[in-house]
Amino acid sequence: MSAGPSLDDIRVAARRIAPFIHRTPVMTCASLDALAGAKLYFKCENLQKTGSFKIRGATNAILQLSAAEAARGVVTLSSGNHAAAVARAAAARGIAAHIVMPKNAPAVKCRAVEGYGGVITFCEPTFEAREAASRRLVEETGGVLVHPYNDRRVIAGQGTAALELLEDVPELDVLLVPVSGGGLLSGNAIAATSVRPSVRVVGCEPANADDACRSLKSGHIEKNATADTIADGLRAQLCDLTFGILRERVDEIVRVSEQEIVEAMRLVWERMKLVIEPSAAVAVAPAVGRAVRGEGKRVGVLLSGGNVDLSALPF
Amino acid sequence: MSAGPSLDDIRVAARRIAPFIHRTPVMTCASLDALAGAKLYFKCENLQKTGSFKIRGATNAILQLSAAEAARGVVTLSSGNHAAAVARAAAARGIAAHIVMPKNAPAVKCRAVEGYGGVITFCEPTFEAREAASRRLVEETGGVLVHPYNDRRVIAGQGTAALELLEDVPELDVLLVPVSGGGLLSGNAIAATSVRPSVRVVGCEPANADDACRSLKSGHIEKNATADTIADGLRAQLCDLTFGILRERVDEIVRVSEQEIVEAMRLVWERMKLVIEPSAAVAVAPAVGRAVRGEGKRVGVLLSGGNVDLSALPF
Repeated sequence: MSAGPSLDDIRVAARRIAPFIHRTPVMTCASLDALAGAKLYFKCENLQKTGSFKIRGATNAILQLSAAEAARGVVTLSSGNHAAAVARAAAARGIAAHIVMPKNAPAVKCRAVEGYGGVITFCEPTFEAREAASRRLVEETGGVLVHPYNDRRVIAGQGTAALELLEDVPELDVLLVPVSGGGLLSGNAIAATSVRPSVRVVGCEPANADDACRSLKSGHIEKNATADTIADGLRAQLCDLTFGILRERVDEIVRVSEQEIVEAMRLVWERMKLVIEPSAAVAVAPAVGRAVRGEGKRVGVLLSGGNVDLSALPF
Repeated sequence: MSAGPSLDDIRVAARRIAPFIHRTPVMTCASLDALAGAKLYFKCENLQKTGSFKIRGATNAILQLSAAEAARGVVTLSSGNHAAAVARAAAARGIAAHIVMPKNAPAVKCRAVEGYGGVITFCEPTFEAREAASRRLVEETGGVLVHPYNDRRVIAGQGTAALELLEDVPELDVLLVPVSGGGLLSGNAIAATSVRPSVRVVGCEPANADDACRSLKSGHIEKNATADTIADGLRAQLCDLTFGILRERVDEIVRVSEQEIVEAMRLVWERMKLVIEPSAAVAVAPAVGRAVRGEGKRVGVLLSGGNVDLSALPF
């Protein structure tokens, strides 16, 4: 068995974070149903505080710090939604947040972090430079690292989304979740398969950053040689913890082309009037493209976030 | 007294149309509240069927046709949301819809009308040509004209939005509604001031098409010499019916610049993750710009629609 959180951990997390997050709505759309040949239920984490699901895991981790740990603040590394979530969750607890961001991170994401009071340390935009910078910050500040996904508390927090979705739509047949480092998929796969063992959990991944798909096939953690995808939230790679959970709990990983991502994003904007980011569209594409044998079924789609730079849209 | 619909008419309309429309959510947003210095309640008609409030009035009118009238179908003139709404409401009743549209109407709007089974007649893009074409169609087909706003049934239908909003937020202090031909503002002003007499109803209008503002000041219906505004749903003018209702029920009309419209639209997209069209942003701008003495108050904002051409965004 993996060392992932249990359903109980996720249930406790849900109660712990409830005062600090939105219970996001589940939306439906007749015209997307028609395309999918299925009944789609969209869990709208784009409407979540900070504009993505990440506030769930960050809040769950930060609320569990001891007073002594909290006094030293937290450290994380992220160029995007997790950075803003940690900054906000730290601010809610009144503690410092040190965020390592690549120096090419979008200005809008940096502003969001600073708007929540986070302190940014810029580094070279490589995996190694970010890891090194965050280690150095932990040493210097004594702060606790809140990793974006290699953290049971974070994974438990993310899983609360599926818990809510299954409360609203108990008889779900399929659940589509984007996968990057695997924190969101791990937490929601544990929650969904525990509450409803018959549900089929499908990870959705850009074909241009398909490490999870290849890893589950080969049985080893595979790396992304490149991650050239518009889905800027899905460029990370699995870690031992999330890989173990995915092997146990996930039925399938589907790969989505860049064109499919943009088309699905546009569909949701046009038909549902919801701003979603490309990473969220990765879980929409297999539904409307009928790539997951969901026809005639009740299919949950986790819309992971809505943070996009409106000055640089792909349409 | 004007010959507008009564609160009872609007209540009956609400029951009549309920099976055919969405009860749209009322959303809130902490960061827009901070800008406004007020508690804002957004009635999300962008999430309504056909992407705008127009389905309310169209449905209310079409459901009241006698069997003999219905058999001859309906006629309307609109380049935008009312056209799609009439087409859809007619389809729901299984009757024909003939729509006069200017020949420069956006292709996406024409596709929406045709998608609902509406039959389009193109005409020159002038007020006179559209009126003449619709009169001709009424003569030829024997169909009933469902005017976009010069129609008590349509006005009563539109007013059901404020009825719902006040059910969800009974203690509203201010209500902001876009104004064009005045159907939406008339219906919602009647509903809101009848249910809650203390509410201050404010019409919101592009400064570049400010006939309503000038009309209420002069006491006569004033025309727009031009209507050069990005708010493509707000280029029409008041008629006798709506002018009379506005004089009785509306406290103020505020004028909004083109830049304010685009900025407010962008704010809602970025912070609320909602796709709204420029016409809806016209009611957001006075709230976030503190132009309506709403500070410290509960302010309702009617987000009238979300139909935009994603290929031609102003940002």
